[in-house]
Amino acid sequence: MPHGPAPSLFAGAPALARRLFAELQAAGSDGVGITRRSYGDGETRAIEIIEAHARAYGLETTRDAAANLVVTLPGRDPDQPAIVTGSHMDSVPQGGNYDGAAGVVAGLVAMISIRRAGIVPLRTIRLLGLRGEESAEFSVPHLGSSALFGQITPGMLALHSSDGQADLATCMARVGADLARVSRGDRLVDPAGIACWLELHIEQGPVLEAQDQAVAVVSAVRGNVRYPSVTCTGQAGHAGAVPRALRHDAVLATCAILSKMETAWESLLEQGHDLVMNAGRCQTDAARHAISRIPEQASFSFEFRSQSEKTLRLFDDLFQQTCRTVAAARGVAVETGPCSTVQPGVMDAGWRERLCAIMVDLGIPPATLPSGAGHDATIFARAGIPSAMLFVRNQHGSHNPCESMEIDDFLTGVEVLLHALLSPPP
Amino acid sequence: MPHGPAPSLFAGAPALARRLFAELQAAGSDGVGITRRSYGDGETRAIEIIEAHARAYGLETTRDAAANLVVTLPGRDPDQPAIVTGSHMDSVPQGGNYDGAAGVVAGLVAMISIRRAGIVPLRTIRLLGLRGEESAEFSVPHLGSSALFGQITPGMLALHSSDGQADLATCMARVGADLARVSRGDRLVDPAGIACWLELHIEQGPVLEAQDQAVAVVSAVRGNVRYPSVTCTGQAGHAGAVPRALRHDAVLATCAILSKMETAWESLLEQGHDLVMNAGRCQTDAARHAISRIPEQASFSFEFRSQSEKTLRLFDDLFQQTCRTVAAARGVAVETGPCSTVQPGVMDAGWRERLCAIMVDLGIPPATLPSGAGHDATIFARAGIPSAMLFVRNQHGSHNPCESMEIDDFLTGVEVLLHALLSPPP
Repeated sequence: MPHGPAPSLFAGAPALARRLFAELQAAGSDGVGITRRSYGDGETRAIEIIEAHARAYGLETTRDAAANLVVTLPGRDPDQPAIVTGSHMDSVPQGGNYDGAAGVVAGLVAMISIRRAGIVPLRTIRLLGLRGEESAEFSVPHLGSSALFGQITPGMLALHSSDGQADLATCMARVGADLARVSRGDRLVDPAGIACWLELHIEQGPVLEAQDQAVAVVSAVRGNVRYPSVTCTGQAGHAGAVPRALRHDAVLATCAILSKMETAWESLLEQGHDLVMNAGRCQTDAARHAISRIPEQASFSFEFRSQSEKTLRLFDDLFQQTCRTVAAARGVAVETGPCSTVQPGVMDAGWRERLCAIMVDLGIPPATLPSGAGHDATIFARAGIPSAMLFVRNQHGSHNPCESMEIDDFLTGVEVLLHALLSPPP
Repeated sequence: MPHGPAPSLFAGAPALARRLFAELQAAGSDGVGITRRSYGDGETRAIEIIEAHARAYGLETTRDAAANLVVTLPGRDPDQPAIVTGSHMDSVPQGGNYDGAAGVVAGLVAMISIRRAGIVPLRTIRLLGLRGEESAEFSVPHLGSSALFGQITPGMLALHSSDGQADLATCMARVGADLARVSRGDRLVDPAGIACWLELHIEQGPVLEAQDQAVAVVSAVRGNVRYPSVTCTGQAGHAGAVPRALRHDAVLATCAILSKMETAWESLLEQGHDLVMNAGRCQTDAARHAISRIPEQASFSFEFRSQSEKTLRLFDDLFQQTCRTVAAARGVAVETGPCSTVQPGVMDAGWRERLCAIMVDLGIPPATLPSGAGHDATIFARAGIPSAMLFVRNQHGSHNPCESMEIDDFLTGVEVLLHALLSPPP
């Protein structure tokens, strides 16, 4: 076996996993779903639950200078770069119990299985329970992992929580972070001391469910281009009294832009590109619109994602060109407004292959799929750390209380992770 | 001349028209535009201004049982059906000074010109200053003209004003209407006693301005089919994590429906149909939409208008078919919701020809165009009274404070009207 021998999950693993998720559920319930605000009490309670169980099984625990949880299983050779696993402990408001927490529970169950099997690994294995991954609370994602690499800027520290009550600096200090180090931009870890970042996460889409597959390896984290507010401005008029040739209709211009982009999307998919696009918000101005008034203004959000930077650039050019063409043809103004770009997160090719090979050895059909959502793994990858992710099937989408995961699917994922943690870096 | 001899406008006509519009402006100004609410004080003040000037020039004035203004120039033969002209005195909130009022001022200036020329016409000429034409106040249009023909229903009398303070019955009683007669559905006029209804009105679109034409004859009043709220329901999901084949996107479905309808519209215009379409309101649900969430719901209003009942039916069938096709292809539900229909208003062919002939005689290039907006003329036409309309060029659209009319264009229209009032019915 290319990845070396490894024990199975310990006999108590299913019960422990169930108990951990039940405790997290009880501590995070908001009556509708789960709320564990970034750098808030719910996130801290979840960290304390993981910490208590880790200690009970004889693992070392501590908090780093950004108040992330660190659980350590020391290896035989402290000079070897460590194998690091984990995910995030926070959730969106009224979210589900597994987004983030599943990866932390998986790491803990795998490490306990290694300890219970009496194995002392060559390399130290470390589990991180990261804070602040979701952007719901401070509008910027991946705060806990960014802090590891000294990437929390003064601007980020001044961001206010969603209730407007406190800024990030205050909230981080409250949960025990060393603000002096964080605000100075100190690196809290040395990338050279980390052999890899391995993160298990629930899939946030329906692909594995549609493919009847419990677990898959993430090929890449899609980057995205976002236009939060594109505005079409035409000319108001009496809906019945203006002939077509004299109309400058902002809604029909918007529909033309989005329909043309959908046709381009379809065509790029046929050519083998990886791409999704979304206009999640679309609206005429409620103060001015009426059934019998030609709509003078419509605005919409537009974002698209791809594993390929080249595809993002191509589709962005098409979008700009389409806006110009539609504007000229219809005598409307199209303002695309501010735009933000996140580059795709490249997952390590060696680790992707290794994880697929482990799946084959375990009798699980290997599968890969892109991640449409952003993850801490991208932050590790950008810091030069070989990074890889496993997705576990989720029946009911993401960021909602119905998010779900079968415990058997989870344990399949943990078993793949367990083998990976004991495997020499590829 | 087929329409008989007629005097020119009297020398003081331009000054009188200017003075009347200035008085109406001062009485109706709301600081932004003009507000003369249906059955409200502003409408009554406008009626009183017209009434005072009519009396000053020796014309008889009265109010009918629905509180409309009636100005009479008696003819030589009281047994002949009367020639009736006029328009409405109310306006939308923050509207313009000419929508409605221009037709009443035109009738008054024309009647005064006849009186000042010493002409006693064969038929009695009557001017109506109608109330309640706009739907802005009670959501139903053409109340004043409907009352003439006993068409005010108990449901209409129970409608509340836009501020919710009073119902139509109360508001009509306040301005002096005979509620007993109106609510009984008594006809206040005998259609057999009316030879025709001739209404001058500003155009509510940009066609005459685009054609460099001061005045035109209305070919027909477009009917309309209205869907106030069409709803597309798809499925929410993470914008980045769901591949195209598994998406059920309500915004893209809406764009597909409207783009297909626009293509059909274009094609019908090429085939010579009269048609306009409008989706004035279009929106995702603000409580649920987000940039990175696949929109599960979008709703839009949809209306279309044509002079031809057949075209309305054809386009309605196409709309229903398109909604079904898009719903099936995209796995979304499309509910077209309640629908209302107003049949086209047929203008009298003889009067249309007569008005064109008068224009030719006066050296004005004859032109016809459809009315996209509804008018009291449709109510008279449906009561079996031969009806016709003249449009006067308006530079800045309708139902807004910028609505405008050149006094020379107006006087050209009044001159055509003057000749028509003295012309024997065709």
